[in-house]
Amino acid sequence: MSTTAPRRLHLNAFLMSVGHHEAAWRLPESDPHAHLDVAHYQHLARTAERGLFDSVFFADSPALYGDVRRRPAGALDPTILLTALAAVTSRIGLIATATTTYNAPYELARRFASLDHVSGGRAGWNVVTTATAEAARNFGLDELPAHAERYARAAEFLDAARRLWDSWESGAVLADKAAGVYADAERVHPAAFEGRYVRVAGALNVPRSPQGHPLLVQAGSSEDGKDLAARYADAVFTAQQTLEEAVAFAADVRGRAAGFGRDPRTVLLLPGIVPVLGSTEEEARRREAELDELIVPEHARRQLAATLRVPEEELALDRPLPADLPSEDEIEGAKSRYTLIVQLARREHLTVRQLIGRLGGGRGHRTLAGTPEQVADALQTWFEAGAADGFNVMAPVLPSGLEEFVEHVVPELQRRGLFRTEYTGTTLREHYGLPVPVHPRERERGTSAATPTAPPAATPAAAPVPAPVDVREREAVPAG
Amino acid sequence: MSTTAPRRLHLNAFLMSVGHHEAAWRLPESDPHAHLDVAHYQHLARTAERGLFDSVFFADSPALYGDVRRRPAGALDPTILLTALAAVTSRIGLIATATTTYNAPYELARRFASLDHVSGGRAGWNVVTTATAEAARNFGLDELPAHAERYARAAEFLDAARRLWDSWESGAVLADKAAGVYADAERVHPAAFEGRYVRVAGALNVPRSPQGHPLLVQAGSSEDGKDLAARYADAVFTAQQTLEEAVAFAADVRGRAAGFGRDPRTVLLLPGIVPVLGSTEEEARRREAELDELIVPEHARRQLAATLRVPEEELALDRPLPADLPSEDEIEGAKSRYTLIVQLARREHLTVRQLIGRLGGGRGHRTLAGTPEQVADALQTWFEAGAADGFNVMAPVLPSGLEEFVEHVVPELQRRGLFRTEYTGTTLREHYGLPVPVHPRERERGTSAATPTAPPAATPAAAPVPAPVDVREREAVPAG
Repeated sequence: MSTTAPRRLHLNAFLMSVGHHEAAWRLPESDPHAHLDVAHYQHLARTAERGLFDSVFFADSPALYGDVRRRPAGALDPTILLTALAAVTSRIGLIATATTTYNAPYELARRFASLDHVSGGRAGWNVVTTATAEAARNFGLDELPAHAERYARAAEFLDAARRLWDSWESGAVLADKAAGVYADAERVHPAAFEGRYVRVAGALNVPRSPQGHPLLVQAGSSEDGKDLAARYADAVFTAQQTLEEAVAFAADVRGRAAGFGRDPRTVLLLPGIVPVLGSTEEEARRREAELDELIVPEHARRQLAATLRVPEEELALDRPLPADLPSEDEIEGAKSRYTLIVQLARREHLTVRQLIGRLGGGRGHRTLAGTPEQVADALQTWFEAGAADGFNVMAPVLPSGLEEFVEHVVPELQRRGLFRTEYTGTTLREHYGLPVPVHPRERERGTSAATPTAPPAATPAAAPVPAPVDVREREAVPAG
Repeated sequence: MSTTAPRRLHLNAFLMSVGHHEAAWRLPESDPHAHLDVAHYQHLARTAERGLFDSVFFADSPALYGDVRRRPAGALDPTILLTALAAVTSRIGLIATATTTYNAPYELARRFASLDHVSGGRAGWNVVTTATAEAARNFGLDELPAHAERYARAAEFLDAARRLWDSWESGAVLADKAAGVYADAERVHPAAFEGRYVRVAGALNVPRSPQGHPLLVQAGSSEDGKDLAARYADAVFTAQQTLEEAVAFAADVRGRAAGFGRDPRTVLLLPGIVPVLGSTEEEARRREAELDELIVPEHARRQLAATLRVPEEELALDRPLPADLPSEDEIEGAKSRYTLIVQLARREHLTVRQLIGRLGGGRGHRTLAGTPEQVADALQTWFEAGAADGFNVMAPVLPSGLEEFVEHVVPELQRRGLFRTEYTGTTLREHYGLPVPVHPRERERGTSAATPTAPPAATPAAAPVPAPVDVREREAVPAG
């Protein structure tokens, strides 16, 4: 891809059971057992690939979090699930969430390298530190480790993982049958990583994978999270409510990346959006309202109370949030999400019932209810204003919400020249326009055969920004 | 399967890169990059399924163990690889090795439950404690934990894993769309496991998988290993050199199982065999010799020195092993394999070079070099003598060794009525004739819908034992 090619946006399909809306499973069309059915996800991955998406993505936490009464609970291990999706797709990227707090670098670096091999270079890892005490107690701890400690460990974990992925130079395997020499031991390097939280001695037992390093994604928006993204991430999945906030966030992360000595154009910003499509705006709004009516307030209130760390009985459905909630500083969990919820309720003077309605659909991300053209307008506006390099698409109902997006929004984006009309590469890094890391020893020696891809152009295209469109952009914030 | 059905033997395909023989990669037919190529393994799994094998299996260790010069080094994460194989097969069982020493029960129990869901009930876990200091140093430890400590942790780990797999009763998911109630919270149970080495608080975030519990396999033959097998394992992969030893081993494990209150018929004994096939015995022996000639003695000696914990220079190729080797008690690693190698060398007065020849092909397992009829004779003898419930088939060269076994040995076993002629079940437990564990709470209440399968008949069939056949059964012991 040359830097004179038109700048194109990136689309990631964030998949979750039968959809991101908490009541989606109650619709007649939804199979409530789909979240354990690999065929359901294989259909979704094929649909996203038909739509030329860059990638599919699964969130994750190693705990049964939330209330099993409320919605389909639990989820398959995303690295296992994505491997099953790799088998029925050939181009689309495969991004799994995994925590640095409760895994070991050797095991996890190997798992992602294996997924990268099995998928022919399509693996991505969304790095999280896991913000719940429930998870801590599943791994022998009594309490959640402190936020700063989790992020310090995450940085060491990623340093160790990168050393492990650099164990094998790309030229290490000789496979010299005549001489009986399989590999050049001088080109296989122990990780030899000694940190405060993480120690790894040996070389990875998986030779270098097609992408060199699997793509790294980061999704936290705390100060520590932004620093981690700026140091390590190739892409950032973020929740942004307004264009101004999104532009500021992007500038913040890119500035930090430059501060770490990186080319800030190599960090892609992908805010989440929840598209609710209709052939008219009225139809889209009606579909949204029908979904919201299926929310069971008692379930949602229980979840909200857990998120806010208050007893459930203190949340009266038809009254505002209690005045004396903890400040973000007191929260060791998902700080930025907590603040987002409280600020939303305070700013708009919402009752608990109203807040629950807002939280039901989109887990902290922008809901765009409208026609395909209106949704494309909204995406174009953000993309061209530098607020986003692309979007993390969170269909409220699956598979129908993704199918509609692929059939109606993708062609509209293509008509506007904003989205690819065919895959030009086969790896996730190629889709995202990001180079394959050259092995440090090979860079020193100048022996690498890798051809780094040019980073994507950072400056917005010169196309005129369209006038604001009548798309309802409502905040929808997670209760978990 | 009723208990009056004829007793049939079980076949597991133990897969390893281009074959178990250390020099297999040097053959003209071998692709030296096949161990990272999912298509290679998908072909092998389809071949084994065509041969109606019960399962395929991968050994594993979380370290780059051995010498990268010697043979294809490293391996994909077996849980990832088996998931890729699940996608292209529909019946065959999928057994991955994973260590209890360096994993966490919540993460690993979930991974196997996920594989069980994705494969429709075909997941198995070969439980190991990992016997190398190299692995310990990849996980922040300075030295290998003591043998007894590793096994004590393994037992706790399995107790915790079983609690996690019992988190969800099979009737827990209600999916009541009208009432808006997804699951019955009273039928989802926290693991609440508190051990000395392992603590897990919450419920697994994967609902009950098709097999209830993935099948458990154990492969160590130390005293601790046999106890672990007798308490937990559904099948035992074992290395046995002689019929007498194998009968004694089977009786030992079954006796221990009875001591733990189990039906001893529900532990299947599957010794490893290395088939080297030819249309005549002479052809088989010639093929074996051709492979052995490709062994590079210097590589093999380096590996042997590491296994025996002696400096390489103390192993002169044309002299016997040094007299002053450590005793098994001093070995914290793979005790039983260590003893097997030393005893073989001493018993047969082998030089280091001769020992290396013996170790090259079969990693401690019986090599059967002969015609398909001769190999079938040998399997039948062991099976009917109660030395084996089936066999772990370790082809020296892959894929050809497995293809030949499927094309020539399997039909011979079928003609003799010793092996299935079609799959009668869809899960690994069904292939092995083992019941699905009923959830303890459902057993108490008598609410289980599960229909336990009858255990396999333990008494040998009444068919006459054939006369001893001229099959060369040579010991072949691992250098690693």
